Order: sequence, then structure tokens, then C-alpha cells
Amino acid sequence: MARKIILDCDPGHDDAIAMLLAWGNPEIDLVGVTTVMGNQTIEKVTRNALAVARVAGITGVPFARGAHRPLVRQVEVAESIHGESGLDGPALPEPTLELDARHAVDFIIDTVMASEPGEITLVPTGALTNIALAVRKEPRIASRVREVVLMGGGVNVGNWSATSEFNIVIDPEAAHIVFNEAWPLTMVGLDLTHEALATPEVAASIAAVGTAPARFVGELLEFFGETYKDQQGFEHPPVHDPCAVAYVIDDSVMETVRVPLDVELSGTLTLGMTVADFRAPAPDDCTTQVARNLDHAKFWGLVVDALERIGAVEP
Amino acid sequence: MARKIILDCDPGHDDAIAMLLAWGNPEIDLVGVTTVMGNQTIEKVTRNALAVARVAGITGVPFARGAHRPLVRQVEVAESIHGESGLDGPALPEPTLELDARHAVDFIIDTVMASEPGEITLVPTGALTNIALAVRKEPRIASRVREVVLMGGGVNVGNWSATSEFNIVIDPEAAHIVFNEAWPLTMVGLDLTHEALATPEVAASIAAVGTAPARFVGELLEFFGETYKDQQGFEHPPVHDPCAVAYVIDDSVMETVRVPLDVELSGTLTLGMTVADFRAPAPDDCTTQVARNLDHAKFWGLVVDALERIGAVEP
Amino acid sequence: MARKIILDCDPGHDDAIAMLLAWGNPEIDLVGVTTVMGNQTIEKVTRNALAVARVAGITGVPFARGAHRPLVRQVEVAESIHGESGLDGPALPEPTLELDARHAVDFIIDTVMASEPGEITLVPTGALTNIALAVRKEPRIASRVREVVLMGGGVNVGNWSATSEFNIVIDPEAAHIVFNEAWPLTMVGLDLTHEALATPEVAASIAAVGTAPARFVGELLEFFGETYKDQQGFEHPPVHDPCAVAYVIDDSVMETVRVPLDVELSGTLTLGMTVADFRAPAPDDCTTQVARNLDHAKFWGLVVDALERIGAVEP
Amino acid sequence: MARKIILDCDPGHDDAIAMLLAWGNPEIDLVGVTTVMGNQTIEKVTRNALAVARVAGITGVPFARGAHRPLVRQVEVAESIHGESGLDGPALPEPTLELDARHAVDFIIDTVMASEPGEITLVPTGALTNIALAVRKEPRIASRVREVVLMGGGVNVGNWSATSEFNIVIDPEAAHIVFNEAWPLTMVGLDLTHEALATPEVAASIAAVGTAPARFVGELLEFFGETYKDQQGFEHPPVHDPCAVAYVIDDSVMETVRVPLDVELSGTLTLGMTVADFRAPAPDDCTTQVARNLDHAKFWGLVVDALERIGAVEP
Repeated sequence: MARKIILDCDPGHDDAIAMLLAWGNPEIDLVGVTTVMGNQTIEKVTRNALAVARVAGITGVPFARGAHRPLVRQVEVAESIHGESGLDGPALPEPTLELDARHAVDFIIDTVMASEPGEITLVPTGALTNIALAVRKEPRIASRVREVVLMGGGVNVGNWSATSEFNIVIDPEAAHIVFNEAWPLTMVGLDLTHEALATPEVAASIAAVGTAPARFVGELLEFFGETYKDQQGFEHPPVHDPCAVAYVIDDSVMETVRVPLDVELSGTLTLGMTVADFRAPAPDDCTTQVARNLDHAKFWGLVVDALERIGAVEP
Repeated sequence: MARKIILDCDPGHDDAIAMLLAWGNPEIDLVGVTTVMGNQTIEKVTRNALAVARVAGITGVPFARGAHRPLVRQVEVAESIHGESGLDGPALPEPTLELDARHAVDFIIDTVMASEPGEITLVPTGALTNIALAVRKEPRIASRVREVVLMGGGVNVGNWSATSEFNIVIDPEAAHIVFNEAWPLTMVGLDLTHEALATPEVAASIAAVGTAPARFVGELLEFFGETYKDQQGFEHPPVHDPCAVAYVIDDSVMETVRVPLDVELSGTLTLGMTVADFRAPAPDDCTTQVARNLDHAKFWGLVVDALERIGAVEP
Repeated sequence: MARKIILDCDPGHDDAIAMLLAWGNPEIDLVGVTTVMGNQTIEKVTRNALAVARVAGITGVPFARGAHRPLVRQVEVAESIHGESGLDGPALPEPTLELDARHAVDFIIDTVMASEPGEITLVPTGALTNIALAVRKEPRIASRVREVVLMGGGVNVGNWSATSEFNIVIDPEAAHIVFNEAWPLTMVGLDLTHEALATPEVAASIAAVGTAPARFVGELLEFFGETYKDQQGFEHPPVHDPCAVAYVIDDSVMETVRVPLDVELSGTLTLGMTVADFRAPAPDDCTTQVARNLDHAKFWGLVVDALERIGAVEP
Repeated sequence: MARKIILDCDPGHDDAIAMLLAWGNPEIDLVGVTTVMGNQTIEKVTRNALAVARVAGITGVPFARGAHRPLVRQVEVAESIHGESGLDGPALPEPTLELDARHAVDFIIDTVMASEPGEITLVPTGALTNIALAVRKEPRIASRVREVVLMGGGVNVGNWSATSEFNIVIDPEAAHIVFNEAWPLTMVGLDLTHEALATPEVAASIAAVGTAPARFVGELLEFFGETYKDQQGFEHPPVHDPCAVAYVIDDSVMETVRVPLDVELSGTLTLGMTVADFRAPAPDDCTTQVARNLDHAKFWGLVVDALERIGAVEP
């Protein structure tokens, strides 16, 4: 049976690809898409999400807008990576979907509480502000979701500082909330996603699909590759967010290891660091795990397969 | 015209008296009561709020339950001051009111957004968790409320540590959010409320009212006086929360001074301190002020007057 | 019997006046002057100390140079208050005294260890770096000095931030060390020294002495008064450092109250705050006290008296 | 020409082996041994250092006692690892050497300033308190020492917390000082020393030397192996401190990589973490490097060789 997920995202180039993967893959039942400020402002990422929905031909899925700013810290966007629109590169169509009337927080709460226990998986690929607000407003979702599979953080690797990753450090308090709730949590962090490189072979496979959505992905990767090369010195861009979706589809696409995780809130050099304690085997009540060692071929195979299934979308 | 307020509280002995003052005074239009964990758990303070409503004969006012825990920190209650029930001392009747179906956060948002701009005043007398969640979920309330008049913090005085007050320090991140929003904010802190002592003369005036609600207040003050003497060395107990309501009724009951305010989130000795910067005159865009120099007679006169107006309540 | 003191200072306008007071008053036996970076670099404040010695005719007193920078933080000087030289205003003579060969830290240790227990009082009027290094290198001085009487910090008042005073905040770790040692410590902070205003009447009394050293003090106050008016909005400048010397001369020149004191090392808004805990009477083992309520006439009388005793100094 | 080193240590089992290696190896000219509290109190580790000197037959080398406590934090010793004496296991002889009259801080300063620039290498294998005090008291040593090669910290590995190593975390302010000075600094951290395991083969090689000092080392490893197994789950104990000495002897015994390093002073989860920033190639002015990938055979070969050269020592 397909896994029901809510994708909570801030498109964002890799978020857009995560959306396409979730929509195209038959193992995923995309029950909703929620947005959160991050790669760009909430207005921009929400518009981008709807534009991607049109590109991918997504219908019948509620889209709900979420938090406009982090809980405590000031807004910080990643324009240097994702451009002024948050999704620079391809031309974006006008959205045709209407937003759900509810706030993302309420959409998440309502969906989880209306589903069976263990039915809904939350897949955040941006700041954890919506998820944190949801579980503080309705604590019962903590025991009702199946699991949280998030893209963010990293074990011993950072991108926004030496020790921190963007999604976590822009709202560390929200991350602290989410990492300390009782739900099972899988952190798909930079140590994993820095293996998800869009190599020329990957780009060629995607181009070979030959459809408009595939060309759209190609243009995303082209822009993203440029900024990642300029800003962070990557030869080929790491495509973070679809990795979290891929793990839900097929957990053999990466390894996981159980380890206690927490988020540093007060460090001068380490604010927003996701701290894993590997000094001893994880205790029995440990509900957190980290992903590592991506099966690169299998991962990109899933992306290409999703694009093929999406096929040619009528604009 | 009476001032419309939402009282956001955690009864709590002084919260209960704040409710009675708000209900009994004709200058206040009590449009809702919301609860937040603090003096006791959310279950207990919510039950207490409803019980106080019955004691005071409050009808036609929605009561909504709010946050069960602080945003980031662990729950900490003030059982040493307010007892196991959160309202130890008098016998509490079974509540007869039904709770509003909405979460306090949504009740606050709905009420503010359905009212005219500048119509609703928020009066928090507990942790600021609900208010923080509301303004993060619906940022437009920041410019729509008339003002926030809160009991909490203090200028150069603490009770839960040398530098911090209970309502602020139990959820400092929420306080930081509320103090840094653009709304006008009046901090009625310990430097003011430590002047609101329930002296024997005060107790006598209340006893002279002779009604069941007045006896209830007398019993609250008796218990509260004992714990304040034992725990904090006060000869007569400071009755904090009604001071915030009194300021809304009649701002001549205390002085205020405009000063930039912020909340310390990372100090070892100063976590949760409300920091006022008195080094220079407040800049023109300063929206925060602190209260000081209570008119003791006028304040307690308002409380006695409210009890007289409430009169004898049929149980 | 005159009180033996080591004056540890960073002249600095008010430090210079503290030197003159200590040298001119017969109740003080000035056994050494040590310098520490602060109001200006260690080179400048050391040169200034020697120049002031020549102005005042100080002889037979060792001068030792101390720390060039704070323990952990970067150097920060108060050029906006004390000017480029650290003692702008009067013309400074070429020093004639030779520096002691020892580092201030060793001078302090040697002097304390060579004296009787309880004989030496340390009077720091700058950053506490030298004192902290001394007590870490030779812990026995903690029980051997009579007391530490320092100018720095403040109760509920700051100048370099809303909560911190310059001498403490430029080396908060050193201050934390000094405040937490077992010696008796008197904090003469801003709440006291902001009463030590050099009013026109004070300036007139000093001018009336009619000597070169008095004219020198007059010129110091003139410059200091200008910068304090421009930078901090004071009508008349507060003359901090001599207050600590005055307390050693005659403790009736101010009140003191015993209270636990500590220094905040990690606050965002409160770094370097001197935290006094007034919630309960000081415990019996409390060794710290704060000064308050200056006798303004008596204090300035001591300064004028010292200038009269110093008399006309041959250049 | 042999490398002149000052070994600054807190024996401690592995410190003792570091002393033997430094004394026995002809590439090292041991110009002094200084002690610092850490594995045990300053009294105990100093006595241990002198006892090890007698075991190894060390003569003509000054030993100087150093700091009795960390700069800011409270004393914390590693009794769970090193036992009540700091060197539990073998019987310790009465020391015969006399301590140098100077404090370790002055011994370090005097030795460095009396030597040629670039002549002295500092090898701290304990808390960095002495080194920090020395460079604050005499800043010129920063440009005069050849380099600092220290055992402490780790890249992405901790032992005293998830992110911190004992030597650093017990005096993080001292470490921050040392890591931020301009001298070349090599961090031989846990990621390297956790490869320096005393396997049964290692123990056998040492036993085969057949002398009293070798038996002493064998007994040290036996005790250390037990506590490391019990406390930290190691099958064979990592022998940290001699790794730093080994690097000075022959830098081919490990790899090094240049990377900016700093020490976290304010983290809740990360206090004392040595933060390496690997996001970009080290800038040209980077003076810090970390060691990794130990040549296990070559390392232990150096230890055995030193024991053979030390030979049988007359008690």
C-alpha cells in the first residue's frame, strides 16, 4: 500500500524535485503539500510550489501555506543558492491550483488526526517551523504520525556554518522541538545528501525522458549546479530534498543508524548543529536515526522513473 | 466604552482574582478567557478557570484551553506557591461551563481578526506561549490588537531566579517572541506587583463585602499569603495578575515609562530576564513600556468594587 | 595606620584622579601601581600612569605593567570617552619614573606574599585581568589580601550595554574569576559612581587649590565632561575610579550592603552583567558587598584635600 | 638535531608513557616538564610526574608545577579513568627530583624567551591552562615558540560529552586562548588517538623489553585498559598522549591536514568542542592543523624503542 505523506517544503530547486518524485512514484500517496519560508519568503515558495504542481500536473492534492518566519530568529533566505524567485532557472507557469484555506499547521493537524494512527508520514524538507507549531498546538500528533523523515542537519558536516545546515539553523528552536518529540525521526542530512550529486550522467538520464517536466528538472539542475559551484565549490550539485522522499519509497536506498540526536541552541560556533552521540550504542528508547551511504544509482533511478511515470503534462 | 479583553491566564490564585476583577468591573468587556500551563498543568489550570467562572457567576464568555507546555523548555509548575491543584485553599465547585471547541491560539486569532483593528486588548497573566503561537500562526494580529498588557518579568527584580520572573522564565522563547512584536506592550512586572500587597486592611475590606465570591477571594489570599511567606519571605502576599487588568481599567492606577524591552534567552544567570535599556530616552519607534508605582488604595478599591458588583452568586 | 593598597588601573581620566587621591591622602600607603589595558592600550595607559606620577610628584612607588589584552575576548578600548591617548585634555609630561621589571601579575603576587596576611588591599579600577591572572597563578593570595575594593559593574545599571559596565564587560571571564574567589570584595559600581558627579561647584573647589596638579585635574574633568555629555548624555561627568579609593580611606563615604554577586558570561543581552541576588538576606558565608549612596560632599572633600596635601609639584 | 620540547602534562597513565617516549627517544631534547591539574589534582599529578621521572631515570630536566585549577570553570578530575592517585596500577616510587622553584607558567616563559626563536616546541597533553596563562602573561612567546603540538580535542568525536574531549572541556577558555594564538598548532585529537590502541601484541612487545620501566608501562596499560573497557567500552585502551610526542619525533607517523580550528565556549551540547571548518580549503593564513590516520606499527615501534634505549634503570 502506498505511503501517505505530507510534504512540507520551501521550493527551492531540490524541493521541486522532491515534489515530482513524490507525485510520480506509485509507492507514495501525496496527501498534501505545505509550505514554509526558507529558501525564499513564504509568498515566493508558496507560489513556486503551486507552479511546480502545474508543471507536474499535480491535481487533487491540497496545498496549504505555512509559517512566514522562524519561531525566534529573524528570517534568513538562501537567495545565493536558489535565486531571487527561490526557483530561478526555468520559466515558471502561472499557478492554476487554489490554496487550501487552512494554515499549514492546521492542515497537518487535521490530516493527522483524521487518519489512522501510524498512517501519515511527515516529510519536511525545509525549516521545521510548521511541524514544531503543529505539535505544540496539538500534542497528540506526536504519537499519531507514523514517522518524521526530514531533510536537514548532518552528522559532522555543515553548509551554512562549519557545523550547521541551512534548514536547521534558520529555525533552530523549531528543530529542537521536532527532534525532541517522541515520534520516530529519520534525519536525512548533509552527510547523506552530499552523495546525491547530479552528475552529467544523471542529467543525461533525465534529459532522455524527453518530456516538459523532465526538461524543467534539467533546467533546475543547471541553475542549481551553477550556484552550488560558485557558492560552495561543488563540482556537481547535491540534490538534497528528494533523498528524504526516496527513503520513504524504498529504505534500501540508504543505510540508517539509530543514534540519539539533539539540536544545539546556544553555541557561538555550533548554533543549529545536529548533535549525534555515537559514544555508546543507542539506548532502547532512542527514536532517532540518521541516514548514510546513499545508493546513488538506485536513488537517481527513482527520480527518472517518477519523471517517466509523470509523462508529458499538458500545460 | 468598555475595553474588550482576552484574559490569557493560568489560575493560580492571583489569576483567579484577575478574572473576578475583569468580570466585575464595568470598564472591561471580557470577550474570552484562555488558559495556558504555568502555575499548574494545563488540565488543572483550565479546570480552575472554569471553577472560578462558576464562583463568579461568569456566563456568556468563551473559555478556551491553550498550550500544554512551553515552546522549547520543559514544563515547570509553581506548586510551591499555588499548591497541588494550582488553586489550593478554597473548596472549588464543579465547573458548569463548557469549554470552547477551539484551541486558545485559534480563539485568540479568530477573535482578533473578527474584531475591528484596535478593538481587542490581550491581557496575558501567565506564560506567553499562547500569544506567541498565535502571532506566529497569524502575523496579522500584531497590528490588529490594541495592545498587550501583561503580568510578567520585572525591572531589576526576579522571583524564580535573581533576575527572572516565573511567567517569563518558564517559556522565555515565547516571551522573546511577544516582546519583539510590533504591538504596543505594557509590562506589569514584579517591581509593580510587589507593591500590590494584600495587607490585613485589604483582607478586611474584602471580607466586608460578605458574599460567597468575596469569601472565596479571602480564602485564596489566606493560602497564597502562607506560601509567599514560607517560600519567598513576604510579610503579605503580592497579588500580581489583577494589576494588569487594573491598568486596562484605569491607567492612572500606576505610572508607566517607555523603554526598550527584550528577553534574555541565553544567559546562565540571566535566562528569562526582561532587559530594559534605560541608558537613553526611548527612541520614537519604541512600543514597549513598563509599569511602576502602584496606587495601592485605588488598586484594591477596584478589586473590592468588582466584588461588590458581582454580588452574591447563586451556586 | 595607613592602609596599604595596590592600585591596578588603566588611566584614564578618573584613574588619574584615583592615583592622585591615593597618593595625597595620608590614610593610604600606596605600595604599588599596576596597569592593565582598558581605557586605552597597555602601552598608552602605562605611559599615562607614569606621566600622572610625574604630575603628582609620586616617588618611591613601584609601577608595573600588566596585561595587554583580556583573557578570552578581543581588546576593546574606550577611545570615545578617554580620547586617543587615553588621557586626552591636559598636556602630559614625559615620564621620569622607570617601570618595575616585573609583570604586574608578579608584582601583585610578590607584594601580597611578602606582606602580612590581611595587610594588602587590592584596588582595581580597570579590567580585572591582572587580578585574575595573579590569583590563578598564585591561589594563596586569595586568603592573604585584606580585601578587593574595585570600581566596576553596577547593580541594575550599565554603560557599555544596557546591563554591563565597561571594566567588567571587556574582560568578563577575568571578572568572573575575581568575583568568585574567597576574598572579601566590595563592588563600587555605576549605581554608586553615577552619584560622583563633577559639578561646577566641584570644579571650582578644585580650581581653588591653585596648583599645577589641581589644574591638571581641572583639565581632565573638562575633557571627560565633554565626552560624557556627548556620548552618554550626562550633564556633569561621573568620576568613577576615585570612589573605590575613597571607600578604602573612609568607609563612611558610602553605604554598603552584603549580597551575593556573580558575573554573567553567556548572555546575549547580559554579557558581563554583575548579578546581585537580593531575593533573600545574604547568607553568612557571603563575602561580597556593593556600595551605594555616596556622600557627595565628603567624597569630593577627600579629593580636594588630597590635592592640597600634594601641593605644588616641581615639574 | 634533537627537537627541544617542554612537555606540559597531568600524569595520568598516557602522560607517563609520553614522558618515557620523550625521554627515551634521541630526536627529542626534553628541556622541561610542567604539570597541570586534570587527570587528578595538581598535587597528585605533580607527584606522579616526579615518580615517573624516577622510574625512567630522568635527570637534568627541570620539573615545574603549574595551574591548580581551570581559568573559569570548577576543577573536574578523571578519577574514573586514572584512579584515585591519577596513576593507579603500578607501585609508585618516592620521587627523588626536586621541583623547580618557578611556577610552570614562568618556567615556560623563561625557557622560550631564553631560547632562539623557533627553538622550543610546546607539547601539552593535559588542560591548556598553563599555556594560556603563559601566553597572556608574556605575549611574545606566541611568535617565539616553534609550534604547539597538543593532545586534546577531536574532529567529530568526543569522550567527555558527545562533542568534547576531556583536556579541552575541563578548561575550554584556556583552550580557546591557545587555539586562537598565532603560533602553528597541531591538534592530535581523539580521531587520531583512538587509533593508538594498546592491543595484546603491543603489550607483548613492551613486555619483551624486560626492564623495570617496561614492566611499569605494562602495569599502566593493564589498569588503563580495565577502566577504558568499563567506562567507555573500548576493547583495548587508546593511549592518547604519546601520540603528540611521536608526531614531534617523526611527523610521518600520522597525516595532518590544515584546517581552521576553534573552541566552542557557550554551547549547551557542544561546550568545549573543537570545531574544524572543512567547508573550504584552509586559507593561506591558517596556522592550525589536525592529525589523522596513525601508522600504528610505527607509533608503537617508537614507544618500544624508547623503552629499550632507557634500559634498566637503577632504582
